[in-house]
Amino acid sequence: MTPFRLDQTDLHPLLRQQAAAMARPEAHLGKLIESPRRLERYSVRGGGLFLDYSRQRLDDSSRDLLFQLESRQGLRARFARMCQGERLNVTEKRSVLHTACRDFGHKAVKVDGQDIMPEIRRVREQIQQFCDQVHAGKITGAGGKRFRHVVVIGIGGSYLGTEFVSTALAALADKDISLHYLANVDIHNFGAVAAAIDPATSLWVVISKSYTTAETSANTVQAEQFMRDKGLDPAKHMVTVTAKGSPGDDPSRPVLQTFHMFDFIGGRYSVTSAVGGVPLSLFLGYDRFEALLKGAEEMDRHALNAPVEENLPLIAALISVWNTTYLGYPQQGIIPYAQPLAKLAPHVQQLNMESNGKAVDIEGRPLSEPAGVVIFGEPGTNAQHSFFQLAHQGRPFPIDFIGVRTPQYSRYAAHSKGVTNHQELWANLLAQARALAVGQPNTDKAREFTGNRPSSTIILEDLSPENVGRLLAFYEARTVYEGFIWGINSFDQFGVELGKKVADGLRAQMAGRNARPDQDFSGTDAISKAYLHILFDGRYPG
Amino acid sequence: MTPFRLDQTDLHPLLRQQAAAMARPEAHLGKLIESPRRLERYSVRGGGLFLDYSRQRLDDSSRDLLFQLESRQGLRARFARMCQGERLNVTEKRSVLHTACRDFGHKAVKVDGQDIMPEIRRVREQIQQFCDQVHAGKITGAGGKRFRHVVVIGIGGSYLGTEFVSTALAALADKDISLHYLANVDIHNFGAVAAAIDPATSLWVVISKSYTTAETSANTVQAEQFMRDKGLDPAKHMVTVTAKGSPGDDPSRPVLQTFHMFDFIGGRYSVTSAVGGVPLSLFLGYDRFEALLKGAEEMDRHALNAPVEENLPLIAALISVWNTTYLGYPQQGIIPYAQPLAKLAPHVQQLNMESNGKAVDIEGRPLSEPAGVVIFGEPGTNAQHSFFQLAHQGRPFPIDFIGVRTPQYSRYAAHSKGVTNHQELWANLLAQARALAVGQPNTDKAREFTGNRPSSTIILEDLSPENVGRLLAFYEARTVYEGFIWGINSFDQFGVELGKKVADGLRAQMAGRNARPDQDFSGTDAISKAYLHILFDGRYPG
Repeated sequence: MTPFRLDQTDLHPLLRQQAAAMARPEAHLGKLIESPRRLERYSVRGGGLFLDYSRQRLDDSSRDLLFQLESRQGLRARFARMCQGERLNVTEKRSVLHTACRDFGHKAVKVDGQDIMPEIRRVREQIQQFCDQVHAGKITGAGGKRFRHVVVIGIGGSYLGTEFVSTALAALADKDISLHYLANVDIHNFGAVAAAIDPATSLWVVISKSYTTAETSANTVQAEQFMRDKGLDPAKHMVTVTAKGSPGDDPSRPVLQTFHMFDFIGGRYSVTSAVGGVPLSLFLGYDRFEALLKGAEEMDRHALNAPVEENLPLIAALISVWNTTYLGYPQQGIIPYAQPLAKLAPHVQQLNMESNGKAVDIEGRPLSEPAGVVIFGEPGTNAQHSFFQLAHQGRPFPIDFIGVRTPQYSRYAAHSKGVTNHQELWANLLAQARALAVGQPNTDKAREFTGNRPSSTIILEDLSPENVGRLLAFYEARTVYEGFIWGINSFDQFGVELGKKVADGLRAQMAGRNARPDQDFSGTDAISKAYLHILFDGRYPG
Repeated sequence: MTPFRLDQTDLHPLLRQQAAAMARPEAHLGKLIESPRRLERYSVRGGGLFLDYSRQRLDDSSRDLLFQLESRQGLRARFARMCQGERLNVTEKRSVLHTACRDFGHKAVKVDGQDIMPEIRRVREQIQQFCDQVHAGKITGAGGKRFRHVVVIGIGGSYLGTEFVSTALAALADKDISLHYLANVDIHNFGAVAAAIDPATSLWVVISKSYTTAETSANTVQAEQFMRDKGLDPAKHMVTVTAKGSPGDDPSRPVLQTFHMFDFIGGRYSVTSAVGGVPLSLFLGYDRFEALLKGAEEMDRHALNAPVEENLPLIAALISVWNTTYLGYPQQGIIPYAQPLAKLAPHVQQLNMESNGKAVDIEGRPLSEPAGVVIFGEPGTNAQHSFFQLAHQGRPFPIDFIGVRTPQYSRYAAHSKGVTNHQELWANLLAQARALAVGQPNTDKAREFTGNRPSSTIILEDLSPENVGRLLAFYEARTVYEGFIWGINSFDQFGVELGKKVADGLRAQMAGRNARPDQDFSGTDAISKAYLHILFDGRYPG
């Protein structure tokens, strides 16, 4: 039988031994990278990207063991079963088919014997037609004015992926539409959006699979009230992206259009569905959204078909597990040397930490230690002037560096110290990966760099929609492969439930107090009760 | 003699024992918080803020030991010496006097026998006069038009603190001036700023103590070229914030005005100097900047004077060290339930990780394990829909929750489920801290919450400039106290030097190639050379 958990394989104890051996002085990264053709042997091109893992703390023996996990655990076979519609999300009995959203092939993808592709194509065509009509001024708000603002009401998976892509491609946005995000239930978020838009030319895109997300509901109520206060009919300024038959897909509550999403697409994997499709097509034009899908499709096929030693997301996942489970790094940095990729880390933070921040395997048995790591990051060079002190001299953590060969801007080419800004950026990108790996001895220990700090470097040819799609799909596939290796369910998120339940109780207390000012919050715990008195009465404990 | 390192105190082995004892079932947070008057006994008001640490994994014994560290290590006495100008930054032989920037008292603060306060007051008055004149339209750009855009050119400490404050107080900005940040040397950052501003009404504020920061120099060159291309005189559209006598304070390179900063103020502690003062006063008005200073001053005095058991930043620092050194959490979350505080985590990330991400003590001797932790965070409730899966069921990490009693917006008061958005926000804030601490058993382990995940909660009455100043100074003082406890120098940053040095070499290679296209990057290491061929020739290895 194929072991679904890493620690059930015969390779696990061997990997532990290998990891222990990496503490030898001759396994220091400064030494490893001096081996002949290190970069050529520890880098790979595929799916349209370049991945250099020469500065990971891997030698041939450890890499060989990691690569063997593919066949031992049947990792690519599981990826194939995912793409074919198998219900890999076992706890929720759902298929996992974000890959179908960008599948431009002609094969059927079946869930319970039914081909889902026609429905996916229908939604994509609906997005294209709707957005083209908005851009042509054929679909307008109540007063007949063209839409100039799009406000996305959605949180988590209905927000972060779209924000990542829209930020990455903002320089290409030529539809005279500005994009705003209303995610947080905090009224400051609403207030800031309300101050930035012109209500008469604003289109609100409400995104929620269930259409019951508390934050999204509350913000939609505010938005509808705001429109009515401005004399506008909300039905003429709103579209919804939601599951068929949800409260957001109810003819008795009319909106301009409703776009369907499906239960086989999880929130954090939903950028290439209508969740990202509607706002991104409005902001960038449908063609650019489709180009993003094409790039993602290329990476999906690569993730599915490339043998392990050439497979970028699979190699990245194996390295991630190696760093976490064997070398013991509990965190990982994502540092794109590209300001437009500023929202990649927050997106992958959700994608990866919500997928793999788990303590049980896919059969519900406890893991020996929790899976997943803390993911964080800011763009370089900014990060160098922020937390890289700790990266170089404090606690080491593995880093994904990302570089872009050709920037979106070719003007602004003034030289400083003999180089362009883009070259200066690259000088720093290359310098950081090297300095972290190699270090530098010093008799003054305050000025010593011990090196041996691992990183990978990913290179994009440019920041086109295709390449952003490739990068998006790379991190999705990496996350999925990590979960396969650890043997966990990367597609449920029961960890968010308890907080919601406790919030329900507290909200009821507040609603009771709103209705009856003499209500004293009995029936809640002492600490929460004290806080309710702070909020309502300005009365602090003690 | 007073031991300057935690691990040299007699309390260290006792704290280790206490930490081990916290693994007992009866020390689970769900049990601890049920003790009588837990909140009252584990919370404190001071310096204008409220700090609840009832849900930290502390009992009376462990807290008592931590509190004893104050007298054992002379922590407050060291803080006093810092405020009095002692050269606590021993490696760079500098005083550490960010507190002087907001000292409105009448005592002298002497460095080398000279009172620095007159100079600090002079710069503050200069900021006030300059900004008042800009707002009154008396100081304008080359064409006589009022300034409507301010672009801050600065990185790291010349950027992140100001961004935090300007984001927190953006709702109060009423000077009809929009604020832009040009930090990253990435040309995308410049391109995005150039697209967002009107050159004729833009004022560029170049911030660099040495005025030799590579990124800031390169961006200044681009900005000057951009202005000249638009037919504008850069000298009429630029001010500098820099050290006296730096290349940015050179009469032969005239600018509208130069504001001085001082070598006794480190970048990451510089928000309340001219570094934050100039852009924040332009954006918000000088009065609000001064209100921010007054709030920070109040917290400084509290940090200096309050006994340990009432001292918010000192308690927070003791908890931070407890969680890191004794309980073994290598990371910490900062989750403000307030969208305007969205940039607090990136600011504290720099402030704290650059200060305390160190591996040697203040005498240059290696620590037994590196100090400092990874700090990261996003606003709640957004974070709940992002990485809280891992927080609840994956690797535990301590969290600072931050709540605001009264929001900046009182309109938009529509109810959803019987509560306002602000109440919904609070219901979630309270629910998360409780759910993380208490957990919930379940026979289905995939749905189980083991709890025992620590957090503190900080409450601000509102998001006024005073309270933002208090919060800023709270995190500064907490960082400083952490460094005192670990016995490290929180004020140098040698960890950023090696990367700069390696980048210098790579930049020279690039400049050589720009000058002579046949140059083949000899004299650099094999991996960097391969990357230079990717960048210049589109030639990938392998």
